[in-house]
Amino acid sequence: MIVRPQPHWFRMLFVWNGSVLRTIMPQMLMMTAFSTLAVLTDGKVFGDKLPLNTSTFTLLGVALAIFLGFRNSASYDRYWEGRKIWGALLIAARALASQGLRYGVTGEDAAHKKLFIRRIIALAYALKHQLRKTSPQEDMVRLLPGAAEADAAAGTVQYLPVYQMDQLRAMLAQANRQGRLSDTGLWTCDQQLNEINHCIGASERIASTPIPFAYGVLLHRTVYIYCLLLPFGLVDAIGVTTPLISVFVSYTFLALEAIASEISLPFACSPNGLALDAISLEIERSLLELAGEPLPPAAACGKDYRLD
Amino acid sequence: MIVRPQPHWFRMLFVWNGSVLRTIMPQMLMMTAFSTLAVLTDGKVFGDKLPLNTSTFTLLGVALAIFLGFRNSASYDRYWEGRKIWGALLIAARALASQGLRYGVTGEDAAHKKLFIRRIIALAYALKHQLRKTSPQEDMVRLLPGAAEADAAAGTVQYLPVYQMDQLRAMLAQANRQGRLSDTGLWTCDQQLNEINHCIGASERIASTPIPFAYGVLLHRTVYIYCLLLPFGLVDAIGVTTPLISVFVSYTFLALEAIASEISLPFACSPNGLALDAISLEIERSLLELAGEPLPPAAACGKDYRLD
Amino acid sequence: MIVRPQPHWFRMLFVWNGSVLRTIMPQMLMMTAFSTLAVLTDGKVFGDKLPLNTSTFTLLGVALAIFLGFRNSASYDRYWEGRKIWGALLIAARALASQGLRYGVTGEDAAHKKLFIRRIIALAYALKHQLRKTSPQEDMVRLLPGAAEADAAAGTVQYLPVYQMDQLRAMLAQANRQGRLSDTGLWTCDQQLNEINHCIGASERIASTPIPFAYGVLLHRTVYIYCLLLPFGLVDAIGVTTPLISVFVSYTFLALEAIASEISLPFACSPNGLALDAISLEIERSLLELAGEPLPPAAACGKDYRLD
Amino acid sequence: MIVRPQPHWFRMLFVWNGSVLRTIMPQMLMMTAFSTLAVLTDGKVFGDKLPLNTSTFTLLGVALAIFLGFRNSASYDRYWEGRKIWGALLIAARALASQGLRYGVTGEDAAHKKLFIRRIIALAYALKHQLRKTSPQEDMVRLLPGAAEADAAAGTVQYLPVYQMDQLRAMLAQANRQGRLSDTGLWTCDQQLNEINHCIGASERIASTPIPFAYGVLLHRTVYIYCLLLPFGLVDAIGVTTPLISVFVSYTFLALEAIASEISLPFACSPNGLALDAISLEIERSLLELAGEPLPPAAACGKDYRLD
Amino acid sequence: MIVRPQPHWFRMLFVWNGSVLRTIMPQMLMMTAFSTLAVLTDGKVFGDKLPLNTSTFTLLGVALAIFLGFRNSASYDRYWEGRKIWGALLIAARALASQGLRYGVTGEDAAHKKLFIRRIIALAYALKHQLRKTSPQEDMVRLLPGAAEADAAAGTVQYLPVYQMDQLRAMLAQANRQGRLSDTGLWTCDQQLNEINHCIGASERIASTPIPFAYGVLLHRTVYIYCLLLPFGLVDAIGVTTPLISVFVSYTFLALEAIASEISLPFACSPNGLALDAISLEIERSLLELAGEPLPPAAACGKDYRLD
Repeated sequence: MIVRPQPHWFRMLFVWNGSVLRTIMPQMLMMTAFSTLAVLTDGKVFGDKLPLNTSTFTLLGVALAIFLGFRNSASYDRYWEGRKIWGALLIAARALASQGLRYGVTGEDAAHKKLFIRRIIALAYALKHQLRKTSPQEDMVRLLPGAAEADAAAGTVQYLPVYQMDQLRAMLAQANRQGRLSDTGLWTCDQQLNEINHCIGASERIASTPIPFAYGVLLHRTVYIYCLLLPFGLVDAIGVTTPLISVFVSYTFLALEAIASEISLPFACSPNGLALDAISLEIERSLLELAGEPLPPAAACGKDYRLD
Repeated sequence: MIVRPQPHWFRMLFVWNGSVLRTIMPQMLMMTAFSTLAVLTDGKVFGDKLPLNTSTFTLLGVALAIFLGFRNSASYDRYWEGRKIWGALLIAARALASQGLRYGVTGEDAAHKKLFIRRIIALAYALKHQLRKTSPQEDMVRLLPGAAEADAAAGTVQYLPVYQMDQLRAMLAQANRQGRLSDTGLWTCDQQLNEINHCIGASERIASTPIPFAYGVLLHRTVYIYCLLLPFGLVDAIGVTTPLISVFVSYTFLALEAIASEISLPFACSPNGLALDAISLEIERSLLELAGEPLPPAAACGKDYRLD
Repeated sequence: MIVRPQPHWFRMLFVWNGSVLRTIMPQMLMMTAFSTLAVLTDGKVFGDKLPLNTSTFTLLGVALAIFLGFRNSASYDRYWEGRKIWGALLIAARALASQGLRYGVTGEDAAHKKLFIRRIIALAYALKHQLRKTSPQEDMVRLLPGAAEADAAAGTVQYLPVYQMDQLRAMLAQANRQGRLSDTGLWTCDQQLNEINHCIGASERIASTPIPFAYGVLLHRTVYIYCLLLPFGLVDAIGVTTPLISVFVSYTFLALEAIASEISLPFACSPNGLALDAISLEIERSLLELAGEPLPPAAACGKDYRLD
Repeated sequence: MIVRPQPHWFRMLFVWNGSVLRTIMPQMLMMTAFSTLAVLTDGKVFGDKLPLNTSTFTLLGVALAIFLGFRNSASYDRYWEGRKIWGALLIAARALASQGLRYGVTGEDAAHKKLFIRRIIALAYALKHQLRKTSPQEDMVRLLPGAAEADAAAGTVQYLPVYQMDQLRAMLAQANRQGRLSDTGLWTCDQQLNEINHCIGASERIASTPIPFAYGVLLHRTVYIYCLLLPFGLVDAIGVTTPLISVFVSYTFLALEAIASEISLPFACSPNGLALDAISLEIERSLLELAGEPLPPAAACGKDYRLD
Repeated sequence: MIVRPQPHWFRMLFVWNGSVLRTIMPQMLMMTAFSTLAVLTDGKVFGDKLPLNTSTFTLLGVALAIFLGFRNSASYDRYWEGRKIWGALLIAARALASQGLRYGVTGEDAAHKKLFIRRIIALAYALKHQLRKTSPQEDMVRLLPGAAEADAAAGTVQYLPVYQMDQLRAMLAQANRQGRLSDTGLWTCDQQLNEINHCIGASERIASTPIPFAYGVLLHRTVYIYCLLLPFGLVDAIGVTTPLISVFVSYTFLALEAIASEISLPFACSPNGLALDAISLEIERSLLELAGEPLPPAAACGKDYRLD
């Protein structure tokens, strides 16, 4: 995810980083060529003029407005729901850590305390790796040194975040049986585990169920055919400015489609995806502070920085 | 449900699988014939010219934009709510399994433990079969071998998922009476049963209450009359390109209506419906892993795969 | 509520039942007469031509789009919220019945058990009758035979569903005092009573607070004036096809207003209102099954059936 | 709030009460004068013609559609959220009363019982008076006779509903300490107090935070300038019908702005504001029925009635 | 945040304070110059006429309507969610204070009571300072005099609101261990701490995750290019009124973009940002009243007042 301070309104017109222009460059070049051709041939195809006019495009505009507006809203909802889920994960992780330490899950045993905190952190990293389909092994070994965990990460366990959640519940049950944690304390902590369980399931839902494929196909076709026909519709009315307007209109539609397509997969490593690396690090830092341990440095943050 | 990786932008223009083009083929052919006729007769009906012009269609565009936009949003909301409900079912099933095993619902008895886990899985399959109006018998016998359950599945029980939910509650109540499960543990588990109960009721609500029929009728008529009048309105202005534009505009509107109609019934076995088979299998796999049992293979996933 | 299988796309164009055409027939006839008049007089009023043109109507189109879109969404939200509330009532009723029987509200006493279940069912019927302003007496006497209840239904009690809710709570409190129901059990069941209480209050809210009256007036006027001016705006441009287009455009707007107006009162007995009769019967059937009693037959369901 | 049965579609065109026409009468007269002037001068200002045409207004139409649509939705959301909050207050008040009486907050002491119920009712009235900035003294003295309460209402207490909520909690704590109310009962009732606390805070939020002022300014300017320029844009195209169309278009926009402005302050005493008086009375009646006391008469309800 | 009573409709047209006109003054001046130039050169650039016409702009209007409508809704949602979070903070703070004092967290010890209340207030101020990146030291020292807190505020603690939340939980745990607070009381209060924890996390989420940068870039470009091309498209049709209309249209679009941009950062100190100072003061006043202590004066509120 690219996070930048809002530039001055004039400089913002020429921003390159964080714009999707890069992604749709081939299409833009094609549109330029195509609309220039339309001007040179005066809108003729094989010697016959395509008798389109601008009012034809207002008919298509209705369809486009519905499709793009809908697709964009649905994509942004997925993005923002993804962000809310990870915000809820941070919230529940903090609550579980604070409750666990204050209400007696870990007692006075420093090693036990350390394991409890690290297991919560490991759960967040495990979820991040599952969503991005990357290997959790390095983070697991770093946070939970020991053969069992390394094995788990190495692929014996299919649902690693759920496994960590279950292990944390085992710690609660044990503390309750051993009398360190009251029934109320157990219930209080269990509720946070449920919150975390919700975050896992909801993340999986967004990651595994895209917007129905047919929408994408329909929108894609409508946008491209609209853009390709546009120069022929404009060439009579506005002559040599046709490429300028065609390219500009195409840019807005293709760019919107590209952004919507990108943020509809909020957990991917794309310029506008969510900064899961940074959020995981936040969880780690906040929990270590609650446990009174030294913190790793915050995510680096340059002038034009990018968080992943 | 068809799940495909997003194809290259150029190939996506010619995708056939997962597009709804197949569904609306007859209508598209009719539109082609109809608009060709309009060009050949020069827009005349029984020798008289229909004096429509493009600006007439902007009047209708307002109505169409409202109807299609509304219908589409309402349908997608049903689809996404359906997905959320089944996501919540997975979440609650995991929580109930983890809590039940850790807090003592089943004690140390392996058979009891196996039954508890399988009953939760059976509930998910029973709900799937109820929503799709298919017979649950095969899955019930596979998961819960025994005469009573087979009978239940065979039609003695009208509300099979509710019956399984009630049986699970009976297991909780028994464990509490027998002292294996504390009051807090009972309450903790009961809350997950309530979540599952919500999922059952909410699924039934979506399945039994369609979008009011009158909307569908009104939208259908508006779209078809719009499309049928369109060639006569365009023929004067754009001549021989009339079929091209008419068919393209009709395609966008009819396809959108077809998609919206399909996803408004999210539990049906349609190309854009929800992959209930795959989700049920996920529930089965995840719960078996929590119970430490061997997992069945994940849903097969080819190049162009289809999940049901 | 009219529930029909989706007809074939061609037959759907000529559907009469479930369409709102019936409701707006007088207005449609008036529009036909009016626009025919406009053609015959060539758009002249008292000998002077009304110099309207189609582009005037695009100005009004903006206002119409905003009003109709908003009104329609607000109405549908009320309809769908109403449905959700009654879905939640079914869910909570099932949970309360299952918990009550399993956790000891009623003990082993068959009469007590029967009363508990029937009181929940009676609450649902009482709410239905309150929302539809019909007499609950018949259902109360059927479900809860006894002088007190019949009296209650006969008008001594102003808030009958709340009264039933309070009586159910009295049963819980008694079972707790008599040691049959643990504190945890009491709390578990009380939570479902609260859910039911929410359903009662939320239903009353929708029934008692319409969409602000001023919206209806404004929308009504805009739609009708738009439709009445339309023939004069079209007659110059499209001549004899004026009645065709005018009536078609009027149909779409008036029908949408009529549907929106109807579903904004979701508890009324209208063709597109909610099927409260059928849902109440579902609650009765599902609860009786949980109690192990014989079920009444499900709601009849013909080819073109109507549920109330 | 004006609540009327929906009039016949024809009579509704000429409704005066409940329409906002009254509010915007001065502006409508000004528009009539202004557009008549534009016709008389033939669109000339100081002898020069303003060369506007209708297509100019479609450019402005985009902005208007966005602003009015957004403002209207945001206002209606505030209105409906306000209604939901007061519905939730009724629900929580009923639940607290029923639980308090059944689970032993008040024991058998009639005076104590009376005070408990009246304090809940007083809380609702206190909130109404706080939101409308009227004096709660009369209602407080009526419901809670006694020097302390009268003093409280007279201005010693700044947050009167919160004060009542805190006093109710004191009654719960006392009942628990004196052994009348179990721990579970305390928790059950405390949850309803929290609901009530939410209603208080949420009402304050809506009352204290308007829609950002800058939106109102921008929308206001856009609407008025649009309406003032409109006659000059229409006069060439539609001549003497200019005032008719101008006034009609202005009416729709100004009326929508006026309604949106009114309902964005849902707790005010305006024709389309919420009927807080009637809802408070409902709370009083429903709680007195639960306590078995005689009810005051329901809100009077004439043919064209107004609830405040 | 600027809060003003709604001025008279006529005066509102010329309001300066609270309008965003100030922010976009440079751009407006540029647009005036630019469109005047277009009139003087008769739409020619380097001697050649740019053959744009108004209908070209309706094509762009579709894109603009989608972008501006979406951006504006997304921004307002962030603003209103921010307000809801701080409303929830006030609600939870009141509940925690009332419960803590009534259910025995602080016992009879006045100093302990004072610390408990002040720590909740301090948490709200700490969150405000964190969100606005200002130093919390002054408020911390004022509310919680003592070396530890001053040190904490001085930067040893990275997550100060979370630290205060954890300290409050420590007070609860201690009261429970010392027998002053029952298990039920602990759980009741802990739930409010969780609410507060949610408010902290949700505020951080909004503050740290802006609307994806690419949207801003795309919208910015579309709006500015639209505005810059507009004079050339209008000059043929409406001649000398071109600057008037161009500047007016530009004003509406640029102002909307500016407002949306401002309120998308609801915690900033901008004219339309949230009044966090005033809300923090409300929390302080309401909690002190609950504790029976004297209140500081309410936020000053002049004729044209500004709350921060």
